[in-house]
Amino acid sequence: MNPEGNMKTSVKIAIIGAGSAQFSAEIVRDLCVNPGLQGSHVVLMDIHEQRLEMVHRLAERLTREIRGKISFSKTTHRETALQGADFVINTAQVGGHDWTEAQRRLAEKHGYYRGARLHDFPQMALFLDVARDVERICPNAWLIQSANPVFEGCTLMHRETKVKVLGLCHGHYGYQHIARVLGLDPAYVTAETKGFNHWIWMTDFRYKGQDAYPLLNEWIEKHAEAYWAQDNFEFHDTQLSRAAIDQYRLYGLMPIGDTPRFVGWWYHTDLAAKQQWYGKLGGFDSELGWQRYLNKMNENVKKIERVVLDESQKVTDIFRPVQGHEQIVPIINSLVNDEEGIYQVNIPNKGQLIQGFPEDLVIECKGVVNASGIRGVVTPPLPAKVVVGEMVPRWRKAECAVEAMRSGDRDYLLQYLLHDQRTRTREQAEALITEWLSDSRNEKLARLFHA
Amino acid sequence: MNPEGNMKTSVKIAIIGAGSAQFSAEIVRDLCVNPGLQGSHVVLMDIHEQRLEMVHRLAERLTREIRGKISFSKTTHRETALQGADFVINTAQVGGHDWTEAQRRLAEKHGYYRGARLHDFPQMALFLDVARDVERICPNAWLIQSANPVFEGCTLMHRETKVKVLGLCHGHYGYQHIARVLGLDPAYVTAETKGFNHWIWMTDFRYKGQDAYPLLNEWIEKHAEAYWAQDNFEFHDTQLSRAAIDQYRLYGLMPIGDTPRFVGWWYHTDLAAKQQWYGKLGGFDSELGWQRYLNKMNENVKKIERVVLDESQKVTDIFRPVQGHEQIVPIINSLVNDEEGIYQVNIPNKGQLIQGFPEDLVIECKGVVNASGIRGVVTPPLPAKVVVGEMVPRWRKAECAVEAMRSGDRDYLLQYLLHDQRTRTREQAEALITEWLSDSRNEKLARLFHA
Repeated sequence: MNPEGNMKTSVKIAIIGAGSAQFSAEIVRDLCVNPGLQGSHVVLMDIHEQRLEMVHRLAERLTREIRGKISFSKTTHRETALQGADFVINTAQVGGHDWTEAQRRLAEKHGYYRGARLHDFPQMALFLDVARDVERICPNAWLIQSANPVFEGCTLMHRETKVKVLGLCHGHYGYQHIARVLGLDPAYVTAETKGFNHWIWMTDFRYKGQDAYPLLNEWIEKHAEAYWAQDNFEFHDTQLSRAAIDQYRLYGLMPIGDTPRFVGWWYHTDLAAKQQWYGKLGGFDSELGWQRYLNKMNENVKKIERVVLDESQKVTDIFRPVQGHEQIVPIINSLVNDEEGIYQVNIPNKGQLIQGFPEDLVIECKGVVNASGIRGVVTPPLPAKVVVGEMVPRWRKAECAVEAMRSGDRDYLLQYLLHDQRTRTREQAEALITEWLSDSRNEKLARLFHA
Repeated sequence: MNPEGNMKTSVKIAIIGAGSAQFSAEIVRDLCVNPGLQGSHVVLMDIHEQRLEMVHRLAERLTREIRGKISFSKTTHRETALQGADFVINTAQVGGHDWTEAQRRLAEKHGYYRGARLHDFPQMALFLDVARDVERICPNAWLIQSANPVFEGCTLMHRETKVKVLGLCHGHYGYQHIARVLGLDPAYVTAETKGFNHWIWMTDFRYKGQDAYPLLNEWIEKHAEAYWAQDNFEFHDTQLSRAAIDQYRLYGLMPIGDTPRFVGWWYHTDLAAKQQWYGKLGGFDSELGWQRYLNKMNENVKKIERVVLDESQKVTDIFRPVQGHEQIVPIINSLVNDEEGIYQVNIPNKGQLIQGFPEDLVIECKGVVNASGIRGVVTPPLPAKVVVGEMVPRWRKAECAVEAMRSGDRDYLLQYLLHDQRTRTREQAEALITEWLSDSRNEKLARLFHA
């Protein structure tokens, strides 16, 4: 209950990396259709002026078409954007996809097929800059981390600043895909998932209140082979891949969302392995699947641009005026208007939400959100097999990344790679780190690691 | 203080695997020279009758020569040995060195140079049998685990039984070797080491009360290259190897005892790597070093046998009548006669002696022993680099082994190997497990894992 009765609260929201048109437009659309947040102001911030201008026009048009009461400003200066912000949403990708792909190619040159996620490090450096600015300029704001790496990045910001950090991701909706393929009405399907971001497991799965795991088991037994045999999967169709079901068999719980893309090095040794486990595209992260993803995203950007530049078209034809599946705006509403809701959140592991891991690690779980903040919901612990088989190695890797960024100690970068199954010699790992830090785009990290 | 004044307590001690002459003789000798334990009885138990007879004669002769008041019996039946025991010392090696070496060769055939420690699993199965017998037959006895794997085995017994388990090892004395090479008088050198057994780190090192790490740093700078250049090392000379110093540089603390033999897969990829890091023998665990160890042990057994069979010789020429460096008998004396002492022990991690790890994991640390039992001493935590770089991966591996034995779930065996850096494909790991479990000597484990 809002203490002022039905009076609602408007807020100031800063979007860092707002040049991502799809993302920003969805936030704006969700704000426009949310009765609790009318009167709010959104500051669009991006270092790319042209994209920023495009998104600003898109936002204005969307708001007009939906008749929302949301106002906008735009800036290329982060500090300006943060002045008086109640919420800061960080969706920025350092150097864009080009720099990500360049870092992937460099790692491939050193024997790491499809890369070693080195692009997470420049991302973390930016996250920390943003969080420190928030701490200084708008210390009471919530920092909503949307860009990856959510797991490492949120943990780093939580350990290094006093900022209220919340990580959000769509991955947990993967259970709905399972429901659809199984032919279950999604309206009657519920799930609980938990773990680390992109490393979550379905601890509870129900259809009309009854355990739905037996229905999944039946589908695996009777229909999975035929489903896989079609092999007409899009890059994002990994939720019921052979890999996902194999992971379920190995660990006893279904991996959800992005989890089946990343768990288990043995599904990813080369394209042939990826095709065996994810179908002929090789899943989201093969050279084939990832290119489709990049193409699709580029097409999407062009499509949005065309509509924005053509005033005769309606932007609500692309962004339909109903709340989407992005949790950000509903969570903001729950926080500021005390409209209690249940969400999937990434928050510090206080109270051992994921048992046996540090309390200052940011984990993913169910959370209750209201004006008092975000409260993790204690659900049954992950089984020992999942913990030992997958959570501990993933945690160790995250610790290497986070502590590398905190300490500037290059040995942590080495440790990050030394336990990568593709590392054959220590020299291989050293050589990759040296060449990566010598790239001029990595000047700031090179300084951090005294390279 | 003993509540009965200066009255001492005699005990009944069962040695499981007593056919190991060197080990048993040292225990007997230490008992004979310990004024607090006169009148005690030792049951020598081994399934190898000939060795048992030899050790029995050795024990009787030692006691006569030292004029100790210790009595003996021998048996090939474990249950008989445990009747009324106050202390059970388990030093047994299942199948002896032949079975260990056969399991190593099998792993090498599947691509695991120098083996994958599969012999730890039959050992753990025996440990659990012994612990369950203790729980049933002499539930108040202390079970002192001396044979390896101390880390996994003690954790397994602690989790599966209510027995008071204590693991003991000599490795922590490695700091004395450092002192000798540095030219420091060992009488003025102290050290604190902690971690997991065979995975311990020197958190404190003092000479005449002052921090001695600077002396070590000076030796590394000025004398290490010359020391390594001699390259006249015996198999056991690994404490100041290039590998050990490299580990010190990587992690910031000296690895002690067996630790430098095992830490870091990159020191062990092949014989050439081992020779680079440990000298021309390749350290303790290369094919060259290990053969020297086996030869030395065989020679030693023969030498002991010759003396035992020749009544004209004195066994005290081999086992000099002074307390040795084995902690077992002094600890027994501390426990039964309340003579408080400080030892290096392997005990459950109650009170987070090694921070951040489960409380039911058996860890190695300094302990105070008196009639009330064994109390872990809280020393400063291990640095994050050691934890992230080495302790977490080692813990994960131990959990796989322990939970495999507890659950009989073969997937844990797979997990044990999947994160081994030498595993190139999942099929490789599967094939090794299948062939290993099909060996007739492994019938019992095959039943446990439903193979």
